[in-house]
Amino acid sequence: MDIATILGLILGFGLILVSIAMGGGGLGPFIDIPSGMIVFGGAIAASLINFPLKNNLGAFGVIMKCFLFKLPDAADTIAQFKQFAEIVRKDGLLALEDKVSEIKDDYMRRGMEALIGGASAEEISELLETELAYIQTRHVNGKKIIDSCGAAAPAFGMIGTLIGLVQMLRALDDPSKIGGGMATALLTTLYGALVANVVCIPLAGKLETRSMEETMIRELMIKGITLLGEGATPRAVGEQLLTFLAPKTRSSIEPKAA
Amino acid sequence: MDIATILGLILGFGLILVSIAMGGGGLGPFIDIPSGMIVFGGAIAASLINFPLKNNLGAFGVIMKCFLFKLPDAADTIAQFKQFAEIVRKDGLLALEDKVSEIKDDYMRRGMEALIGGASAEEISELLETELAYIQTRHVNGKKIIDSCGAAAPAFGMIGTLIGLVQMLRALDDPSKIGGGMATALLTTLYGALVANVVCIPLAGKLETRSMEETMIRELMIKGITLLGEGATPRAVGEQLLTFLAPKTRSSIEPKAA
Amino acid sequence: MDIATILGLILGFGLILVSIAMGGGGLGPFIDIPSGMIVFGGAIAASLINFPLKNNLGAFGVIMKCFLFKLPDAADTIAQFKQFAEIVRKDGLLALEDKVSEIKDDYMRRGMEALIGGASAEEISELLETELAYIQTRHVNGKKIIDSCGAAAPAFGMIGTLIGLVQMLRALDDPSKIGGGMATALLTTLYGALVANVVCIPLAGKLETRSMEETMIRELMIKGITLLGEGATPRAVGEQLLTFLAPKTRSSIEPKAA
Amino acid sequence: MDIATILGLILGFGLILVSIAMGGGGLGPFIDIPSGMIVFGGAIAASLINFPLKNNLGAFGVIMKCFLFKLPDAADTIAQFKQFAEIVRKDGLLALEDKVSEIKDDYMRRGMEALIGGASAEEISELLETELAYIQTRHVNGKKIIDSCGAAAPAFGMIGTLIGLVQMLRALDDPSKIGGGMATALLTTLYGALVANVVCIPLAGKLETRSMEETMIRELMIKGITLLGEGATPRAVGEQLLTFLAPKTRSSIEPKAA
Amino acid sequence: MDIATILGLILGFGLILVSIAMGGGGLGPFIDIPSGMIVFGGAIAASLINFPLKNNLGAFGVIMKCFLFKLPDAADTIAQFKQFAEIVRKDGLLALEDKVSEIKDDYMRRGMEALIGGASAEEISELLETELAYIQTRHVNGKKIIDSCGAAAPAFGMIGTLIGLVQMLRALDDPSKIGGGMATALLTTLYGALVANVVCIPLAGKLETRSMEETMIRELMIKGITLLGEGATPRAVGEQLLTFLAPKTRSSIEPKAA
Repeated sequence: MDIATILGLILGFGLILVSIAMGGGGLGPFIDIPSGMIVFGGAIAASLINFPLKNNLGAFGVIMKCFLFKLPDAADTIAQFKQFAEIVRKDGLLALEDKVSEIKDDYMRRGMEALIGGASAEEISELLETELAYIQTRHVNGKKIIDSCGAAAPAFGMIGTLIGLVQMLRALDDPSKIGGGMATALLTTLYGALVANVVCIPLAGKLETRSMEETMIRELMIKGITLLGEGATPRAVGEQLLTFLAPKTRSSIEPKAA
Repeated sequence: MDIATILGLILGFGLILVSIAMGGGGLGPFIDIPSGMIVFGGAIAASLINFPLKNNLGAFGVIMKCFLFKLPDAADTIAQFKQFAEIVRKDGLLALEDKVSEIKDDYMRRGMEALIGGASAEEISELLETELAYIQTRHVNGKKIIDSCGAAAPAFGMIGTLIGLVQMLRALDDPSKIGGGMATALLTTLYGALVANVVCIPLAGKLETRSMEETMIRELMIKGITLLGEGATPRAVGEQLLTFLAPKTRSSIEPKAA
Repeated sequence: MDIATILGLILGFGLILVSIAMGGGGLGPFIDIPSGMIVFGGAIAASLINFPLKNNLGAFGVIMKCFLFKLPDAADTIAQFKQFAEIVRKDGLLALEDKVSEIKDDYMRRGMEALIGGASAEEISELLETELAYIQTRHVNGKKIIDSCGAAAPAFGMIGTLIGLVQMLRALDDPSKIGGGMATALLTTLYGALVANVVCIPLAGKLETRSMEETMIRELMIKGITLLGEGATPRAVGEQLLTFLAPKTRSSIEPKAA
Repeated sequence: MDIATILGLILGFGLILVSIAMGGGGLGPFIDIPSGMIVFGGAIAASLINFPLKNNLGAFGVIMKCFLFKLPDAADTIAQFKQFAEIVRKDGLLALEDKVSEIKDDYMRRGMEALIGGASAEEISELLETELAYIQTRHVNGKKIIDSCGAAAPAFGMIGTLIGLVQMLRALDDPSKIGGGMATALLTTLYGALVANVVCIPLAGKLETRSMEETMIRELMIKGITLLGEGATPRAVGEQLLTFLAPKTRSSIEPKAA
Repeated sequence: MDIATILGLILGFGLILVSIAMGGGGLGPFIDIPSGMIVFGGAIAASLINFPLKNNLGAFGVIMKCFLFKLPDAADTIAQFKQFAEIVRKDGLLALEDKVSEIKDDYMRRGMEALIGGASAEEISELLETELAYIQTRHVNGKKIIDSCGAAAPAFGMIGTLIGLVQMLRALDDPSKIGGGMATALLTTLYGALVANVVCIPLAGKLETRSMEETMIRELMIKGITLLGEGATPRAVGEQLLTFLAPKTRSSIEPKAA
């Protein structure tokens, strides 16, 4: 998982824990199983009704993979393609066979294998673009589910608080229970706000960024493989692939690439 | 109805019932007929004012049909079209007559009957596309009404709570009634939040997904019938119809289709 | 006024009255002239500031006309045009003179009179389209004012409640007045919510539907008159005008039209 | 200022004053200088941070000018252009010299002076369109600042109420101060709601309408001057300028123009 | 930093301090470290989760630079380019060498150095446009982070208030603590409202304006350098660069430029 996400989650929940500790009374009053059930279960229920079952089942995996899976570095990938182009120029496409088995990234390896296996540029490009479209669809579906949870959690938080208030108000003749009942009632609203604002809303943003980064590196790979297939010179490969990078990153790579 | 929707509804309402049970006091304080009348009746009233009568009358049917009606499986339909193409190649279009009466899906059977009856590709395509446009219009109208109920229910919930609060405040000189009055007043807000967040908002999302799925399978059928009419080979039928499927589904069917 | 709108308004307000009655204490505590003045007057004031005077003055008429004025039925109008086409084919355009005076709809009669009076298709079409554009502008302006009232009423409801709360809090030393003062303060919020959610928001939706229906029937009339001017056959008139109707309505008319 | 805006402001604030008077206790409890400072000053502060200084300084002037400045009447302006066209046809462009000094509207006079001074149609049109673009930019900037104040005033109202509540809660041991403290705390929320809903939101709407009206009359003037430069006949001038008007206004002018 | 931003920040916070002072009780009750930690830390945590680490680290610098960095004046820059064009016409491009080292703005100096160094118009334009695209990306990323903080701060304010309320309600048996606990609980909501409405929302607006201004002056510089490279006359340089300015600013410069 990328470091900023981890730092942010630790900072966010850490601050809340510290703040609870400083207020006195300990963590106890803030933990309530039924409250958690309503908020977390409710968000999951809303997502189950809202989206097809297979999207729901896939969502957790998509999100985890998106955060844990380390994308290949763009600069390294460009350097690799230049090296491959060198080999192709000297010894032909088939000489890449040994190199290909060393590629760690599945997506790129499959494309390279197809190239060496003699598939046409068009076939490889269609194969890889179809897979990229599928990856993007999964990201979009994952983001929709996170967005839905970010909207449903506070709503179920409010529902839980209303249930708690009704129960507390019915027991109003026992004044000693008022404070506790109201405190518990408010917990679902608190849980809902935490789920939405510390987890769902920011995670959805990061997922979008990661999805754009993956799209960029995948498109760079498609272009790189196509260029190898066309027998482009290492220099041409380097120049054309650099245009996929943002200006700043580009200049920081160009020395390496030169 | 699809399994995720049922699971979600059971989970959503189940959690709320369990949470009420764990709070003590039973389900009694949460049931109030006039509160229900205001929220449910109010949402219906707003929908009656907002939409033409025939859309309102049709909405329930559209929603039920959309969830209960099982769409034909895309892979099965493609396999069927390939089989039909085989028959047409061997024995001509009229040989399909027996097969057609076995088709369970009304929409596809009507199209096939027109094809065998000698209608031109253009006529059949217009007939089926007109009907598809009508189906889509009904889905859009149904979704609009669900969306309207999802917005009106919380609003009438607040109206009900305000009425309850005014009545409770007027009777403030009898303090024993305060708690109960306020609890009842809050019930409409709770009902409104439940209707919107457990039912309307997620159902509207599912309706949209189902509508897109139905559109896809109907367009696949139009294309399939057109291809049969053109006397396409089973192989061409299979290949062209596969392009209607999402990448992943496609690869999971291709072995079967091969 | 169309039946769904009437039903919806009766249902909406009826439910609220019944619910008030069941709560006990009668309707009395819910009627307060100054509260009504702030909410209704405030919404009107905001509309006066927001829109030109002539739009404000015209709004009530537009809304009433839009709901009370019964649009000619599309199927009847198509049948009428086919009958006219028959007459034109047998006895020429001038033979329509007697029929024209019988047309109840002003818009269509004016167009037919121009046709018989010898105006060119282009002149009639421009005349009728200009008038249609004007009708649409009035509908759009009417809808904007309803939308503005739907947003202003709850805002003035909150303003009224704040005023009431300040007055109640100032008189806090007389505890017997607290309940009543707060109840009255809440009335403006209740009125604002009713105006917005029972009247303005749903009416704006219906106005839009009605406006689209009127546009459709007017465009059908323009097309019909143009076809008569071109001397089209009754069959061609029927076929071309049917394309203005939605698929379902169309098939329900086609038998009649046949 | 246009009459509807004045009526609306009087009605809006009048209703609130009457409602306060009927509640008893007089206007006193509703006037609080620090509360006003937070809401009005806060909205100004937010606008200063949000927009460049020159836009802020110009905003008041733009708004005042937009409401107080009476636009020339479209029908009168068209009549005037037809009269000018008559003069040009009889005595040539230079014969307009006396008439031009009588034109009250600065914008039109400058354009006419350039025409008589021998500037080409292109030069005049560019001069006038550049000025019109500048007028529109000022209107857009003015509207942005009104919109910003309409959003900032309620926010600072809430900030003021929170400050008041904290102070009131700290002094909770003196119960006699609770009511007064809370009443004062609510005043900023009330002020914020009034600034937004009685002034800013509706004024922004009117400013937009006025801006569109000014754009229309200015474009009519550009067209009129261009037509004079081309030596168009009075009849052609009248016909072409009438197309700038809305259908209804048009027919109400045509008799005059005939 | 531009004067309006400073004035606005001083006015906004000054008013709040004065208002607190007038309410009595001093600033003490409004300062609470854990409350600040939740709101400020929470907004930072949400931003860390939402955006890549490098965007977060860069954001503060981008914002500071955007507000503190004084952009070259457009009129001065145009005058400078006209002067350069004069020199180029008299003594050729190389005669600009001394002048270039005097240019204070980095961006323009780099472009001019490339021009004198013999780079082609295309190369310079690509170099400068790439850098401009990078500047714009940084501004957009900075604005996204300010927007995110403006949304997260009030959310964490509410979370803090809920935590405080739960703690206060748990301690309800000691009534003397109720007021203080609630006051502290409200502080996070107050802090969140201040961060969003006094800082983030208006700063995001100003950042956008500044970004548009910088884009304008940079594009003016690209055009100016291109014109010098083409050997345009001082008059042509002046005329073409003036079109980058808004109408009003333009006319205020034209005398100078003449």
